[in-house]
Amino acid sequence: MRSCRLRIGIIGSGQLGRMMVMEGRKLPFQYYICDTSAGTAASVADRYFSADQYREFVESCDVVTCEFEHVDDRPLSYADQAGKLLPPAGAIELKRRRSREKEFYRSHSLPTAPFSVCDASDLKSAVFEFEKAVVKRSEGGYDGKGQWVVEHGNVPSVTPGEYVVEQWIDFDFEASLIISRTADGQIRCHPPSLNVNRAGMLIYNEAPEHDYGMRAIAERLLESLNYVGVAGIEFFIVDGKAMINEFAPRVHNSGHHTLHGSSISQFEQHLRAIAGLPVPEPELFQPSGILNLIGTEYEERLMSEVLSIPGSHFYWYGKEPRRRRKVGHINLNAPTIGELDERMKQAIDIVYGGRLDSYL
Amino acid sequence: MRSCRLRIGIIGSGQLGRMMVMEGRKLPFQYYICDTSAGTAASVADRYFSADQYREFVESCDVVTCEFEHVDDRPLSYADQAGKLLPPAGAIELKRRRSREKEFYRSHSLPTAPFSVCDASDLKSAVFEFEKAVVKRSEGGYDGKGQWVVEHGNVPSVTPGEYVVEQWIDFDFEASLIISRTADGQIRCHPPSLNVNRAGMLIYNEAPEHDYGMRAIAERLLESLNYVGVAGIEFFIVDGKAMINEFAPRVHNSGHHTLHGSSISQFEQHLRAIAGLPVPEPELFQPSGILNLIGTEYEERLMSEVLSIPGSHFYWYGKEPRRRRKVGHINLNAPTIGELDERMKQAIDIVYGGRLDSYL
Repeated sequence: MRSCRLRIGIIGSGQLGRMMVMEGRKLPFQYYICDTSAGTAASVADRYFSADQYREFVESCDVVTCEFEHVDDRPLSYADQAGKLLPPAGAIELKRRRSREKEFYRSHSLPTAPFSVCDASDLKSAVFEFEKAVVKRSEGGYDGKGQWVVEHGNVPSVTPGEYVVEQWIDFDFEASLIISRTADGQIRCHPPSLNVNRAGMLIYNEAPEHDYGMRAIAERLLESLNYVGVAGIEFFIVDGKAMINEFAPRVHNSGHHTLHGSSISQFEQHLRAIAGLPVPEPELFQPSGILNLIGTEYEERLMSEVLSIPGSHFYWYGKEPRRRRKVGHINLNAPTIGELDERMKQAIDIVYGGRLDSYL
Repeated sequence: MRSCRLRIGIIGSGQLGRMMVMEGRKLPFQYYICDTSAGTAASVADRYFSADQYREFVESCDVVTCEFEHVDDRPLSYADQAGKLLPPAGAIELKRRRSREKEFYRSHSLPTAPFSVCDASDLKSAVFEFEKAVVKRSEGGYDGKGQWVVEHGNVPSVTPGEYVVEQWIDFDFEASLIISRTADGQIRCHPPSLNVNRAGMLIYNEAPEHDYGMRAIAERLLESLNYVGVAGIEFFIVDGKAMINEFAPRVHNSGHHTLHGSSISQFEQHLRAIAGLPVPEPELFQPSGILNLIGTEYEERLMSEVLSIPGSHFYWYGKEPRRRRKVGHINLNAPTIGELDERMKQAIDIVYGGRLDSYL
């Protein structure tokens, strides 16, 4: 820890920052938010700085981290120059450009789907390499935005720029890991979760899942990046083997299950790691999962019905609902994975009532 | 729930209010604090009202609760008149006057130590009734303040006022219960904890402890009071039987162990109960306890050493340390009570290093 009462800067004002502040309130730290607009995190933080105030923001903080990678460049670069940015800029940069992320995996022999990088004008020949492919815009894509699944060389109509064409992986399922590394190289990992996605968005997940080699891959990735903090890494599992789909240099939606039923949440784990505090190995007390609230209006009835499920918690982010927007989530715990699955189905039914697709 | 986005008023600005806000941030509620000065809870709340602004405070809230009973009368009475106070005024009143609390137990046949009520001038004859007694000031006493242990009819020198003289109970140990009741009469209870006190203050506790009949007594108490919210009830255990020592009409220091390793914290449980939301039966995932930080200065080394214990969390309240003042606490979880006990001893050693008495 660099000073007595650490001032933690968070770039980004979304729900990940909000939960980081909420979970960090136990520690004797101050939390400052910097973003282009004062979002949901700003309303629970000690201070908000606009992106134009990036210098004052960075200078006021002892450590700066980010809760989202698609943020204003200025606080990121300035924090990096000031030697205050954790995780390091290199790791965040990877995530801001899909081509770099994929090339990093290839150059470090980390298993990932075969791919090629091309300009929009060369897309036709690139997609011909694969029978079925996923075309991804290199910059600015997340939650399924800027992505197209193509078959038989059909080319989507796209705007100019760089694209990554990846072989379609016929995976058995998706899983992810929440893993942290401290500055002195200690790696700690939550048990993996099985993730159920639809239309490029995480709908729900459940932990624990088997490892399938994920931890060993994730450790190599974090070490290669000289990473400090929590990362969320998504994998495809094919025939019992894991390959990286993508990684996020920050706390991650699939790690919200650590908020309950776990010895430490991903948010506190991240704060401890960037503050130089000890991070003991996380322990899962009970099977744990989350259901995302995507585009749903806040309703008293909905919250009340959800909270009548044993082991449930309701998180509302205070954002205006719109289609494909995560506005909250539900945590669920249960004594066994089977019971967790039953409670999850109950919650899905209460929240979406068979109309999930209309929210996506 | 009375309105869509409930505004919860909390009378008192101490650490109990602070943790209530922290734990309540997941719910779509606003949190307003009212106290004679802006304490540690005000700094994390949505709005602070001085005690003089009690009318505006109560009128701004949908529900009003209290985090401490020794607070300004005006917001309490005004919230009560407005029909917004939970738990009900009668329950809070009991706690503000020890004689009423003890008489309530007697009139409702709830087991408690024999006692008599007297004026300061009659103390001599009152203490003669018991070989060994505890003399307590009826009003304003907590954490061992305004209490004297007397033997053989020796009378302490006290200021004028009403006193309760209680027979000294040679208890085997102290235990407590965190229990809640909703407006529709549903009672939910955390597993009891064993409490270790010294000089009238809770030093540490560990859950789960056996029941010894505590839950049945606590249920009768809450029903008699038509209680809504969480209460913390302290018991003496003598020869395997429980008798009430005292109760607190609020979240309680001995319930902080529910913050980790439990399916719901006492703070969220209280908020759900007063908001009319469901409160499923709490479940303890792992043995859990706390160690109070009493009068300790904040030290980076101390926090770092404590957090290297597996299953530990460090809560700092942001108050100036002074003797006998609770300035934070440490949560500890472990797979077994035996291991919890070992970790507790380790933490006590780190924090107090054999000099506990000098802090009390």
